[in-house]
Amino acid sequence: MSQATTQVQSDLDRLLPVLDAALTLPFRHGDAQLLGEAVRYSLEAGGKRVRPVLCMLACEAVGGTPAQALPGALAMEYVHTYSLIHDDLPAMDDDDLRRGRPTNHKVFGEGHAILAGDALLTEAFGVLATAELDPAQRALALALLAEGAGWRGMAGGQALDLEGETLAAYDLDHLRLIHRLKTGALLRASLEIGAVLGGATPSEQAALRAFGEAIGLAFQIQDDILDATATDADLGKRAGKDAGRGKITYPSLLGLDGARKALDEATETALCHLASLPNRNSLAAWARYLALRAK
Amino acid sequence: MSQATTQVQSDLDRLLPVLDAALTLPFRHGDAQLLGEAVRYSLEAGGKRVRPVLCMLACEAVGGTPAQALPGALAMEYVHTYSLIHDDLPAMDDDDLRRGRPTNHKVFGEGHAILAGDALLTEAFGVLATAELDPAQRALALALLAEGAGWRGMAGGQALDLEGETLAAYDLDHLRLIHRLKTGALLRASLEIGAVLGGATPSEQAALRAFGEAIGLAFQIQDDILDATATDADLGKRAGKDAGRGKITYPSLLGLDGARKALDEATETALCHLASLPNRNSLAAWARYLALRAK
Repeated sequence: MSQATTQVQSDLDRLLPVLDAALTLPFRHGDAQLLGEAVRYSLEAGGKRVRPVLCMLACEAVGGTPAQALPGALAMEYVHTYSLIHDDLPAMDDDDLRRGRPTNHKVFGEGHAILAGDALLTEAFGVLATAELDPAQRALALALLAEGAGWRGMAGGQALDLEGETLAAYDLDHLRLIHRLKTGALLRASLEIGAVLGGATPSEQAALRAFGEAIGLAFQIQDDILDATATDADLGKRAGKDAGRGKITYPSLLGLDGARKALDEATETALCHLASLPNRNSLAAWARYLALRAK
Repeated sequence: MSQATTQVQSDLDRLLPVLDAALTLPFRHGDAQLLGEAVRYSLEAGGKRVRPVLCMLACEAVGGTPAQALPGALAMEYVHTYSLIHDDLPAMDDDDLRRGRPTNHKVFGEGHAILAGDALLTEAFGVLATAELDPAQRALALALLAEGAGWRGMAGGQALDLEGETLAAYDLDHLRLIHRLKTGALLRASLEIGAVLGGATPSEQAALRAFGEAIGLAFQIQDDILDATATDADLGKRAGKDAGRGKITYPSLLGLDGARKALDEATETALCHLASLPNRNSLAAWARYLALRAK
C-alpha cells in the first residue's frame, strides 16, 4: 500500500464515523416517509465521500477541527448526492446502476427521485443556515455553496454536458469549461467552505480554492480514463457509457497516454497550491490517491 | 371593483416594478446560456407573484420597507418557479400548459427543465446568502426558507400528493396535511421571512406565520374549487385535471358548497391573525382577494 493510500485510509477511519453519525439525521422524522426513505437510500449508498472528507481536511489544513467543518461537509454530501440522483434520471444520463445498486428512480420512481434530489439540495443550505457558526463564516459558506452548485457551477456544467452530446464543434477548451463547472465547482467549494469554516486567512482560502480547481480537473480526467478502461464490476456503475454514446472525453481528445499526462500535470499543480499551508499532508495524500484510484 | 381588489392592484403597481427589475439578474451572464434561457422563460412567464408580494407586504406590515424584503421576495419567487417547473414534469403532474404557455420541459426538454428548477432552488439560497442583511436576520430567513421548501415542507407535500393518487384511504386530515406542506409551507415562509427581514418582534412573526398558514389553506381550497369549476382558458392551464384523474380535492370531499364554506372560514381565521399588526390593510385585502380570485 502506498504512503498516500495509508494516509487516506487513516483519514477515512477518523472522519467517516463523524460524518455518518450525522448524515441522515435530518431525514429520519417527518411526514413524508417514503421521500425520506428515498433520500436515505442514496445517502446510505456510501461512495467515497470525497467532498465532505476534503471539506473537513481543508478545515484541518488551516488549523481548524473536523467538527468545525461538519455542517459544510454534510452540505457537500447532500449536494453531491442530489446531483447523482438527478444525473441518473432518464432525461439526463439514464443510468440504472449507481455504486452497485439500482439508481434512486429505479427503486422509488422518477417523481420521488426528482423530489429526493430537491429535498437534499434544500437541506444542504438548511444545515448551514441552522448550525452554530460565526455569522460571517456562515454567509460566506452559503454563498460559496450556491456559487458552486448553481447556474454558474454544477447545474450549469451539467446543462452544457447534456448539450454537448449534440454539439458538432467541441474542443479541449469546451471540455475543460464543462468539467470546471460540472465537477470542479463543487470540489472547489468543498475545499473553500472547509477553509472558511476553519477560519482561513484570505491567502489560505485562495490556495485551497486553487487546489480544489486543480483536483477537480484531475478527478474528471481520471473519471474519463476509468470509463474508457475499467469494467462495470470495477466501477459499480456502467463503464464505457461515455465512449458508447460518442461523448467527448479526455481520452477521446488526447488519447489514453495524453489523458494520463494531463492527469499527472493537474495533480502536480494541485500539490503546488498546498505549499503554504500549515497542515498539508492529508490533502496532498488525497490528491495523489484520487489520481490513482481504480473507481 | 371591490375595495380589496383596488388595494391589491395598487400594491402590485408599487411592488412589481421593484421585483421585476431584479428577478432575472442572476441568470443573465454566464456560461450555461441555454439553461439561463430556460430559467428566464419560466421567471418571465409572470403569474400572480403572490409569494414575493406577500413577503414584501409582511415586511411593511411590521414597519419595514419593500426593499428590505427584496432578497426574501426574490428567493420565494425562485423557489415557487422551481416547484412549478418540476411539478409540471411528466414524472409528476405531466402538464403541457402553464400560465397559457407551453411548460418548461416542452420548450427546453426534460433534462434542462430539471436543471432549471435545480438552478432556481440554488439561487433562492444564493440571493439571501449574498444580500446585505443583518446576520441574525439572514440566518433565520435562510432557515425558514429551507424549512418551507424542503422535506418537511413543500417537497415533502408534493411527494405525499404523488403518493395520494394511489392511496385507498384518504380523509380530510390527510388532505390538509398534504396542502399544509405542499402549498402552505411556502406561503407561510413568504410571510415569515418578510416579517424577519422587516425586523418583526417575535409575536409579530408568530402572527404572520399563522396568517400565512391560514391563507395557504384558503389558497389551496380556492385552487381546488377553480379546478372543478373553471375552464382551461380561465386558468391558463388545464382545468378539471384533478377531478379527471380521480384525485381527492376539497370539493370532492366536502362538496362545492362545503368547500366554499371552508374557504370562508380559512379566510376569516387569516384576518383574525392580522389584528395586532400596525400596517395590516394590504395583507387583509390580499387575503380577501385570494379567496375571490378567478384563476
